[in-house]
Amino acid sequence: MSNIRHALSVKRADDFAAWYQEVISAADMAEESGVRGCMVIKPWGYGIWERIQRLMDDRIKATGHDNCYFPIFIPLSNFEREAAHVEGFAKEMAVVTHHRLIADGKGGLIPDPEAKLEEPLVVRPTSETIIGDAMARWIQSWRDLPLLTNQWANVVRWEMRTRMFLRTSEFLWQEGHTAHENAADAQEHTLRMLEVYRACAEDDLAMPVIAGEKPENERFPGAVETWSIEAMMQDGKALQAGTSHYLGTNFAKASGIQYQDREGGQQYCHTTSWGVSTRLIGGVIMTHGDDDGLRVPPAIAPHQVVILPMLRDQPEDAALLEYCEALRASISSQFALGEKIRVLLDRKPGKAATKRWDWVRKGAPVIIEVGGRDMESKVVSLLRRDRLWAENGKPDFATPSRDEAAAAMPAMLGDIQQSLFNEAAQRRDANITRDVTTMDALAAFYADNQRYPGWVEVQWSRPTGAALDAVVEKLKALKLTVRNVPLGAMPADGACIFTGEPAVERIYVARSY
Amino acid sequence: MSNIRHALSVKRADDFAAWYQEVISAADMAEESGVRGCMVIKPWGYGIWERIQRLMDDRIKATGHDNCYFPIFIPLSNFEREAAHVEGFAKEMAVVTHHRLIADGKGGLIPDPEAKLEEPLVVRPTSETIIGDAMARWIQSWRDLPLLTNQWANVVRWEMRTRMFLRTSEFLWQEGHTAHENAADAQEHTLRMLEVYRACAEDDLAMPVIAGEKPENERFPGAVETWSIEAMMQDGKALQAGTSHYLGTNFAKASGIQYQDREGGQQYCHTTSWGVSTRLIGGVIMTHGDDDGLRVPPAIAPHQVVILPMLRDQPEDAALLEYCEALRASISSQFALGEKIRVLLDRKPGKAATKRWDWVRKGAPVIIEVGGRDMESKVVSLLRRDRLWAENGKPDFATPSRDEAAAAMPAMLGDIQQSLFNEAAQRRDANITRDVTTMDALAAFYADNQRYPGWVEVQWSRPTGAALDAVVEKLKALKLTVRNVPLGAMPADGACIFTGEPAVERIYVARSY
Repeated sequence: MSNIRHALSVKRADDFAAWYQEVISAADMAEESGVRGCMVIKPWGYGIWERIQRLMDDRIKATGHDNCYFPIFIPLSNFEREAAHVEGFAKEMAVVTHHRLIADGKGGLIPDPEAKLEEPLVVRPTSETIIGDAMARWIQSWRDLPLLTNQWANVVRWEMRTRMFLRTSEFLWQEGHTAHENAADAQEHTLRMLEVYRACAEDDLAMPVIAGEKPENERFPGAVETWSIEAMMQDGKALQAGTSHYLGTNFAKASGIQYQDREGGQQYCHTTSWGVSTRLIGGVIMTHGDDDGLRVPPAIAPHQVVILPMLRDQPEDAALLEYCEALRASISSQFALGEKIRVLLDRKPGKAATKRWDWVRKGAPVIIEVGGRDMESKVVSLLRRDRLWAENGKPDFATPSRDEAAAAMPAMLGDIQQSLFNEAAQRRDANITRDVTTMDALAAFYADNQRYPGWVEVQWSRPTGAALDAVVEKLKALKLTVRNVPLGAMPADGACIFTGEPAVERIYVARSY
Repeated sequence: MSNIRHALSVKRADDFAAWYQEVISAADMAEESGVRGCMVIKPWGYGIWERIQRLMDDRIKATGHDNCYFPIFIPLSNFEREAAHVEGFAKEMAVVTHHRLIADGKGGLIPDPEAKLEEPLVVRPTSETIIGDAMARWIQSWRDLPLLTNQWANVVRWEMRTRMFLRTSEFLWQEGHTAHENAADAQEHTLRMLEVYRACAEDDLAMPVIAGEKPENERFPGAVETWSIEAMMQDGKALQAGTSHYLGTNFAKASGIQYQDREGGQQYCHTTSWGVSTRLIGGVIMTHGDDDGLRVPPAIAPHQVVILPMLRDQPEDAALLEYCEALRASISSQFALGEKIRVLLDRKPGKAATKRWDWVRKGAPVIIEVGGRDMESKVVSLLRRDRLWAENGKPDFATPSRDEAAAAMPAMLGDIQQSLFNEAAQRRDANITRDVTTMDALAAFYADNQRYPGWVEVQWSRPTGAALDAVVEKLKALKLTVRNVPLGAMPADGACIFTGEPAVERIYVARSY
């Protein structure tokens, strides 16, 4: 199939990082804003985020959470009382020090020295402390528990090196914060939300993930346990796509979140927090993108079906538009994946071929072209984005009748969703190596597999403290990290690859974003 | 009905401002955050916002707009090039000057002097300039027009005096920004979005509004025309609930938004912007609240029906819950106001009477209590929040059979929505005075009607410049402002109340928020 002329100029196999950037611009998802480290999320990118948000929000509400909104500004003193917390954020935060601009007398503006804040405010990097303050006010007795809150918001972390969707100074996310009576309830909830993330990633984003516990050194500062979902990108690297933390009573103590228990005693709450962000969109790109652009799983596609009438600026256009409008109406009255099908009849001016390739690059799951001859024959030309090319190296158009095309849509969209998941799951499973049992073999494995090394599952003795630090250093020399200890893995049956001691569990090591 | 014991401690008639604050806390909608001028929006308040947002977003999308997301930070230099714009914002803005915190050596944290930004960043008070930059990049030719964008975001304006939902330093809003080929298209779009606001306010929020043009002195800085919807609150004051601006080519020139026209020439775009905010929630409170708390119109109620089983911590509870669950399922399978009915079966521990009054204060449209005796008789006890009290001063419970209650719900919710609107519209219409024709009469009218003066419709000659300034000053002495020149009003037929010249149109004057 070497005669295929792909829609992008860079291929994944040639330069994955450059390919990633090209997908974002070719699919018109986002662009640099001119403000350091901040991006503009354009309609197609933001539309995907709105879909993710709606599906995730439904799942979060279905598990009993209410959404709230907390201030964007956090007083500096909140960070002072939370030493461990601050350490973890490397203190790289946007600090508001003034509340007024004045003319500098030279035609410019400066922060007004008279309007300096007594206490600087930090633009939230996360809302743990300010939500902790609220929980301390809201919770009196065990009857108020569990308290299950969630917030959708923008947050800011001053990043030195940014990459669109994956690491930006400002990003959009949800942060869930909950308080419980005891450790068991909070730990159960931590895993419940991890499962919500797994289900959303796999069922909505068609992005297979491994859910598991992060090692001690990768815990959120102040957390007792940190769990993650990890997805394998098409360059074999791991993307941490969501985290769920059991915080013990650490944050409750820092914020004074106490309750009167059933016996009348005062207890600290056990709290959890968990979040996913616009980073998920980066995961979708690197999971489903191909050398022709993005492929959006139907469940999160703003438009699942795009109808392109081949307009000619002629009087016949009216009949063609009518023919297409009937198709649009027929498809949009049906359901796929539990929702009304989202169809766009794209009436914008422009050449049909140009528009086709724009939608290919954007990754609309189904593209239906209709020209005058199609109309005469009562057919349409239908392209599935998940299997774009025919054996002959041409776009693989099917030409069902208009009625057949409409009737096929619910099943076809479900099939595309599933086939994207299957393709990614097969790629992941084919790229997890399990027969590496020594550090030398691990080093050799990654030296031999520069292009697409994937992940290696090894066994370890779950070292802690200094012993773990030594492991982390050894892995770092190979540019590797421990991703997580997967839930539901086989029990250990060998020796620890790092220490030679009897292993207690299996872990994944990988290069990562 | 003097024997009614209302659920709030303050009555509207006694102290409207204190009543407003009490509704917010009694309905558990929001609270002060401890961060200057910023509030925490609690689940019931945020749930109402989510409903408003969803309904407004549907209307904005239906008029052809795509949502985008732009950076929260705006470089200071953007404000410098927009002198008129800055003037209007009084320069009271949150200014980020540093990107790192460090230890001060005394156990505290300070902004790191080494991490001072070369150019300060302003937390967006509105996104005109940064979206203008994007439009300048995105628009090349007339084929790219109209460009119809919208953003849901948080914005910050450093307010000295704040009041929850009405005026807070941080608030949530949507800001639409569009670019067009010519003045006619842009002006038409300005009015189209004004109509979207009117429809959402009246049909979704059940809040009657007057749509019209603001006088010159109340225009958004840099706008050619500013239009508003104005609602009458229960203290007779006006609330500006949404604005839509035709910006001419002023912003296009400042940001360089040009396009190649159909003849190949370069033209500046004509732009519009328009926004509504969490202030709408303040409008809902002051339109529909009563001396028992909030009354939420069903279209924007997070829960439209709340079922309260009278649990007794006894084995019989299980049967009662089953009885209630069947009711919940039956109601939630039906549609009202075009959507699935939102029903909550409130299983939380607590006394039934306490929970009833909590939901009355929150203003759930329908409250259904079910006790053991109700279950035996196959009935329920049903309370409509819009007509809470019976003639005898007791809550006006109806006791339909369970099946009747379920079957009645679609019509009942529609009826509550309409009756709330009618009540507010009648109150507004009864409180617009039209027979005031001199400034002395106007002064006397407001002196005589301290409690509930309402609005006065007068005729004027549409003065501009210094003549308008003089009018504004005269009104200011009476604490009045011109609200707007209503669309669709009767033509003028008298003399200008301010100048004595022949009037050209009618305007509303009022006290306002």
